[in-house]
Amino acid sequence: MTKVSRWKSFISLAVAVLLPFATTFLPAPPRNDFHSLFLSSAAPPASNTTVSDHLRRLTARPHVSGSPADALVARYVSDVLSSAALPTHSVRYDVLLTFPSFRSLTLSSPELRLPVALPLTQLHVPGHPSPFSDEVVPTFHAYAPSGSAVGPAVYANYGRREDFSALARLGINVSRSVVVARYGKIHRGDIVKNAHHAGAAGVVIYTDTADYGSESDGWFPESRWMPPSGVQVGTVYNGAGDPTTPGWASTLEMAGGCERAGPPEGAVADIPSLPISAADAAIILKEIGGPVADEAWHGLLDVPVYRLGPGPAVLNLTYIAKESITTIENVFALIRGTEEPDRYVILGNHRDAWTYGAVDPNSGTATLLEISGRLEKLMKRGWKPRRSIILCNWDAEEYGLIGSTEWVEENREVLRSKAIAYLNVDIAVAGPGFHAYATPQLDDILKQVTQQVEDPDNSSRTVYDAWIDSGDTPLIGRLGGGGSDYAPFVQHVGVPAVDMFFGGGYPVYHSIYDDYQWMEKFGDPMFRRHVAAASIWGLLALRLADDKILPFNYLSYATELQSSAKELEAGEIDKSVSFVPLYESIEKLRKSAVEINKQKEFARDAWFSKWTKTQTLPVRDLNDRMMMAERAFTDADGLFKGPWYKHLIYGPSKQDDYGSKSFPGIDDAIEEAKNANSLDPWKHVQHEIWRAARAITQASLVLSGEFT
Amino acid sequence: MTKVSRWKSFISLAVAVLLPFATTFLPAPPRNDFHSLFLSSAAPPASNTTVSDHLRRLTARPHVSGSPADALVARYVSDVLSSAALPTHSVRYDVLLTFPSFRSLTLSSPELRLPVALPLTQLHVPGHPSPFSDEVVPTFHAYAPSGSAVGPAVYANYGRREDFSALARLGINVSRSVVVARYGKIHRGDIVKNAHHAGAAGVVIYTDTADYGSESDGWFPESRWMPPSGVQVGTVYNGAGDPTTPGWASTLEMAGGCERAGPPEGAVADIPSLPISAADAAIILKEIGGPVADEAWHGLLDVPVYRLGPGPAVLNLTYIAKESITTIENVFALIRGTEEPDRYVILGNHRDAWTYGAVDPNSGTATLLEISGRLEKLMKRGWKPRRSIILCNWDAEEYGLIGSTEWVEENREVLRSKAIAYLNVDIAVAGPGFHAYATPQLDDILKQVTQQVEDPDNSSRTVYDAWIDSGDTPLIGRLGGGGSDYAPFVQHVGVPAVDMFFGGGYPVYHSIYDDYQWMEKFGDPMFRRHVAAASIWGLLALRLADDKILPFNYLSYATELQSSAKELEAGEIDKSVSFVPLYESIEKLRKSAVEINKQKEFARDAWFSKWTKTQTLPVRDLNDRMMMAERAFTDADGLFKGPWYKHLIYGPSKQDDYGSKSFPGIDDAIEEAKNANSLDPWKHVQHEIWRAARAITQASLVLSGEFT
Repeated sequence: MTKVSRWKSFISLAVAVLLPFATTFLPAPPRNDFHSLFLSSAAPPASNTTVSDHLRRLTARPHVSGSPADALVARYVSDVLSSAALPTHSVRYDVLLTFPSFRSLTLSSPELRLPVALPLTQLHVPGHPSPFSDEVVPTFHAYAPSGSAVGPAVYANYGRREDFSALARLGINVSRSVVVARYGKIHRGDIVKNAHHAGAAGVVIYTDTADYGSESDGWFPESRWMPPSGVQVGTVYNGAGDPTTPGWASTLEMAGGCERAGPPEGAVADIPSLPISAADAAIILKEIGGPVADEAWHGLLDVPVYRLGPGPAVLNLTYIAKESITTIENVFALIRGTEEPDRYVILGNHRDAWTYGAVDPNSGTATLLEISGRLEKLMKRGWKPRRSIILCNWDAEEYGLIGSTEWVEENREVLRSKAIAYLNVDIAVAGPGFHAYATPQLDDILKQVTQQVEDPDNSSRTVYDAWIDSGDTPLIGRLGGGGSDYAPFVQHVGVPAVDMFFGGGYPVYHSIYDDYQWMEKFGDPMFRRHVAAASIWGLLALRLADDKILPFNYLSYATELQSSAKELEAGEIDKSVSFVPLYESIEKLRKSAVEINKQKEFARDAWFSKWTKTQTLPVRDLNDRMMMAERAFTDADGLFKGPWYKHLIYGPSKQDDYGSKSFPGIDDAIEEAKNANSLDPWKHVQHEIWRAARAITQASLVLSGEFT
Repeated sequence: MTKVSRWKSFISLAVAVLLPFATTFLPAPPRNDFHSLFLSSAAPPASNTTVSDHLRRLTARPHVSGSPADALVARYVSDVLSSAALPTHSVRYDVLLTFPSFRSLTLSSPELRLPVALPLTQLHVPGHPSPFSDEVVPTFHAYAPSGSAVGPAVYANYGRREDFSALARLGINVSRSVVVARYGKIHRGDIVKNAHHAGAAGVVIYTDTADYGSESDGWFPESRWMPPSGVQVGTVYNGAGDPTTPGWASTLEMAGGCERAGPPEGAVADIPSLPISAADAAIILKEIGGPVADEAWHGLLDVPVYRLGPGPAVLNLTYIAKESITTIENVFALIRGTEEPDRYVILGNHRDAWTYGAVDPNSGTATLLEISGRLEKLMKRGWKPRRSIILCNWDAEEYGLIGSTEWVEENREVLRSKAIAYLNVDIAVAGPGFHAYATPQLDDILKQVTQQVEDPDNSSRTVYDAWIDSGDTPLIGRLGGGGSDYAPFVQHVGVPAVDMFFGGGYPVYHSIYDDYQWMEKFGDPMFRRHVAAASIWGLLALRLADDKILPFNYLSYATELQSSAKELEAGEIDKSVSFVPLYESIEKLRKSAVEINKQKEFARDAWFSKWTKTQTLPVRDLNDRMMMAERAFTDADGLFKGPWYKHLIYGPSKQDDYGSKSFPGIDDAIEEAKNANSLDPWKHVQHEIWRAARAITQASLVLSGEFT
């Protein structure tokens, strides 16, 4: 090697190895100062204008996943992130999406002279025409199978298991019927599954005024409520990620593409279904006879009385899906950490929307872009994070968390090694009031951060004050549900995570009315809630990325597990079942948590801190133990719902994909055993208790830093 | 808190947090100097005497797992380690072991007036009585089921699949027979499985002089060969770890003990079996009629000619097992690393023996103790390792890698996070000639280390010189087999590993003659091979524990995978199958390996090295990527043999638990497809190719340090 080429090689290698670790050679202010700056840089009205401007642009056109408009929104996100001086890149996958090719729903009844073809159409907002409203995808259920169903109509309330049980008790024959159920309690995929299980041939799911409207206020644009023609579109897929690549990524990289297989059993609906409006539902319900439904089943549609059927109304539902392998695009921006570039704090939000997506999800996207702008300001003043921060903008969440899941599957082993936490915001703002879900070691930091942010609806108090006054019980929910992109991080890999939002449920969810006007009039007129969401989300990221010692507290985890276990044990449990192994494992976790908390306290001591200025590894060890403990809650065999669901503490409820369960394996085994009326199934309950206990024991060992 | 109690608390915490990271405050010589001292401290005759003394004491009494003698040997090991100033501890498990309760084998035949009861007894060595020979456990097969089998005898050569196919082609009816097979080609558990599959009711497995003896040299103690009454005892269990706790540890800790379940399907033999001697086998074989066996099937027993049967000899085999939950004990010593106490270099050897165990396994135990003595010398001169070194002494390996597997299962998540490498020595010495098996990233360091150690049989050259002259093809084998305690580390968790020994197979394997006298006369008369084994094993550990940058080279891995893939592709493969995904993934791994090798080279540069004296994290990142890449080869779903076998690159051959396969999933799918004669099974081959390709792609991402 010549001297010159040696130098060339040296320099190029220096760039490769040093760049990731390039420390700031000039002294910068302490990182805490930057955190205050991050909060104060949200000064009104600048931020409010920025975020509302982002939202207007993001929601100008309907942008369902895979559409040209969705690609344009991706470009906008990428441009904004780039202009904030962040290196961005896109990762594309070829995934199976479905679109409506043909839809018809006709109603016949003795009362009607001729069959009625229901319109299945959402009316545009009067006085608020969008030049792009033709681009709204017709109302449908993603992944509903193609097919026709003809049968007497049966009204099944919210379509829960208990609703079908009630019908069975009353002797209502659901077999070969077309079920009419209303939205509002469980995931639509579970409604279809329950209907199929009861023998139905097809399902229509509608929006009742009782759940999404108001008798007196009128509707959007006069009020926040869903107009009568409004339809909640959505997926009936009961899984996560591209159904043709279960457990692996739908990568484009390979010359041979990627392997494709069928979806995992039970993930895809077996019978056709359609979502319909209150207006269409009223026409149908009027023609349903049979017994009068229980009072609790009555909604507020303009029908004389809610009856159960079956018939005499006969519904003919025909749905033809266009299944299509479609390219989706995740957009990423990276702020490389200086001291620990190989540790990731990940912020994620999805971009694709069923229609305009002003609430869901682009209130979150606008918030993410607002954060990027504020971080740019910090960087200009010399801030660089200790750990790497990754901003993610997911695609195809609406179809089944597809963009995030494919990426997590593709990077599974990297994330296992390096991911500190995943902070999800889907809907950032649907109204007033802060709500949060988290894995419990993040409870404390979440509370601390909300104490530093002003309540956007009352400047005399903090978000935290308002939150504890809200009566959320529990204050912090858990992340077992399948409702948004945190699921692959928590449930597949075991990454500590948060999901949060202002406002909760909102009536125009997944309808054509989820647009900028709705947000401006009802969701967040001053865009203060968006700004507050950006402050909370961003500060949480800053603390996790910058704190030398990770602000995790596993004591909350132990406390939480203890009460979840007690709750399960308090149910109807056969006396052969012992919860002792579970309690013993939780006690171990508690001890490890106490121990590491003491060690953290000591590590913050000035003398220690001075020593560890050059000795970074002891602190790294503490942090690694806290990072990896969450991974230990995952189990290779996974849950009843399928091996993809590896987290034994938090997973989806069997009855409702939106619902979150603690110890879902035990919970499910108990349900099975209660219905089985024999002793053997209780052995399975005991087995599930052991499995959870072993996972917790592994976590407590990891946290303690010792081996046996 | 009072000031005093605050100080007390401060001090106790200081001990907890700082002790693990206590750096040497006084400057010590460079670690390389200590490595030379480690080698030179093996000066003869001191080391040779120490090691032979250890071996004599370890093998004074037979010490099958779970026996009082085994506990005494554990105590000896623990005492020696403690006296070398190493903190030691024991971890006990309650596991299912089996012992012979009743054994009988009678032969009837038209030629014999009366049925003959075969003695099933090994004769003591003449002139070498052991006061403890009564303690030798009667010859048996561990985990053979209790039962009687009566049937015509059939001779089945080595009991391989192809041997039973040959019998079938010749029309020999194996159904309800008692198979007589000889040891020498495959694991005894697989012989029994094949016999059961062919319809046999029982199996006896014997030692033929052709495989373990010599016509002219006589036998032990005159020569190294197996005496006629010698019996190879062993397990017929086809799995790893306590069969009653598949996938989890048989811990004693919990108040409720631990969960117990049945063994995984196919792991435990279905028909009774016994091992027998050459002498007993000759009596039987004389009475077997039927066609004369093929020339290749003839052994060297004193019988007129080897015939196949069935009959007219009829065998009546009765075996009653005593199944017993027995406490086993692993012994550990820990040398805590100074800079990186949370990274483990693990040395392991098992202690339990079927009889005296002078070769198997206590040549390894004596070597481990020799290493501990040498490390004590280094420590006295100020050496402390950079990373932690754990010395392990396993119990119940002979029954099915039980001690190591239970510990690995119990510490699975800790090991996933922290284990750098596992270095196994089972038999350290059975004769001359070095042999090694390794995961390929360790190939280079293994070669480097053997270049620094003198060949114990020729002082003019190194072990490496002798090794490459030995004609081992390949030079370094792979760790897919189930032969020793590396299996749980590599195959269950994905820890880089090595297994090595001097001498290979030896005739008195698992017999009463595997004693100190045999070692002294034939295995290692000067104990030089033991000393060399200690030098190689110890130096390997020192390099892995002390080198600032881990001496891993993943380029060897890529090269190895490439040739394994080519080998598979060269077989009879349906043309619908594409190996492109596999080659593409291997190419990615190669590129990542090239890249990280450059980064390592650069990191060794003086300037960088000076910079990283205080900046330890960049080097840690490099090392973590190399450590974690191996984990990425594991897959939650595991292999055909069961989900416990998670490593998709190296796993046991389906035909032989001793045999190691590369890409066992693909290999097995190909075998299945070839026998199926339809197209569908080839789809399964393609699926297995994809699975392996995805695992390699994950590993290449981890190695590169990037996410997509």
